[in-house]
Amino acid sequence: MQNPTGRFITFEGGEGVGKSTNIQALAEYLRSIGKTVIVTREPGGTPIAEKIRNDLLKAHHEEPMAPMAELLLMFAARAQHVDAVIRPALERGDWVLCDRFTDSTIAYQGYGRGLSLSTIEQLKTMAQGDFSPDHTILLDAPASVGMTRARARGEELNEETDRFETEEMAFFERAREGFLALARSESRFHIVDASQSLDDVTKQVLALFEIEGNI
Amino acid sequence: MQNPTGRFITFEGGEGVGKSTNIQALAEYLRSIGKTVIVTREPGGTPIAEKIRNDLLKAHHEEPMAPMAELLLMFAARAQHVDAVIRPALERGDWVLCDRFTDSTIAYQGYGRGLSLSTIEQLKTMAQGDFSPDHTILLDAPASVGMTRARARGEELNEETDRFETEEMAFFERAREGFLALARSESRFHIVDASQSLDDVTKQVLALFEIEGNI
Repeated sequence: MQNPTGRFITFEGGEGVGKSTNIQALAEYLRSIGKTVIVTREPGGTPIAEKIRNDLLKAHHEEPMAPMAELLLMFAARAQHVDAVIRPALERGDWVLCDRFTDSTIAYQGYGRGLSLSTIEQLKTMAQGDFSPDHTILLDAPASVGMTRARARGEELNEETDRFETEEMAFFERAREGFLALARSESRFHIVDASQSLDDVTKQVLALFEIEGNI
Repeated sequence: MQNPTGRFITFEGGEGVGKSTNIQALAEYLRSIGKTVIVTREPGGTPIAEKIRNDLLKAHHEEPMAPMAELLLMFAARAQHVDAVIRPALERGDWVLCDRFTDSTIAYQGYGRGLSLSTIEQLKTMAQGDFSPDHTILLDAPASVGMTRARARGEELNEETDRFETEEMAFFERAREGFLALARSESRFHIVDASQSLDDVTKQVLALFEIEGNI
């Protein structure tokens, strides 16, 4: 479904690709041309959904979370976010910029952890019906770029870290493949090479919106 | 699926039918004949699921909760409960007595609030696969019994309360019909008339287990 008045723009991609910086830059630009802009994120974006986010992030300290429980929580937060924030904003004619959305669930839980893509698809239909982003900016970079940035932050390495990193690298590479597979199958995607300098990435993101008729 | 070693017994029915009293009585009896018994409840039963229960019960003060978000949270808590508590207990050979389970979701969210029964069925499969209670004790009473008990507790009545009670009564009657429809369709159900005195209800519940070969 195209949203009749406002526009729903999602930003996707791995950790450290510059999603939040680019969302802020686009929000500033859109406001400068007179749009009302809401910046939000997933999981989260409403008081209830932020509570669920908190359960998702902190619960691991208490007991291992069942993968299906995690997936259902993710979509519970999403159903609330769509219903309480995103849809009402679009109906008012606002632009909504969202840091991650369903594509992240498909990439991380589906491609990354191997949960059933058809189960995720069923949950997507329950949580959002035929509602979907108007445009999705995929900030794409090899997993090694994020890893290199982590190393640059001076994290100490040892044998344990190395093994963990090798596993993580494979996980993030699978997620990246997931994002790219989605991007190939749906025309709402715009792929931006996020291994460039952050300035160049931002220029390319803004160009999508600055050139009349582009979006 | 019949659980090979322990037994999974759920108690269902409206508010005020005596579920917790009867669960305690049955737990005592089973312990007296040497069983290891775990008493638990839904939503809840694990640290993560109790957090979700808390979100479900308290979130309403902050913003209206989307019905689908509520349903997904319910099943997220259930997936965690089954995975972290119920299945491991049954595999150890314990008996698990649970205050409400999926039948309550079908009765309240499905029959009561009108959410799609096939959506609930899909979520049930995601959260618990073919796992299901060995026996379900349905403590059945007309909704008016619970309402009468509420009046007996001395709640003040006015026009507003009356209208609310009329709506509530209809809701609880629909839920009761849901429980009875489930009980007619699955042989794991044992219907006990909960409009009797609590003592008589407990005698009838215990008789199900005391008479050898009954259960």
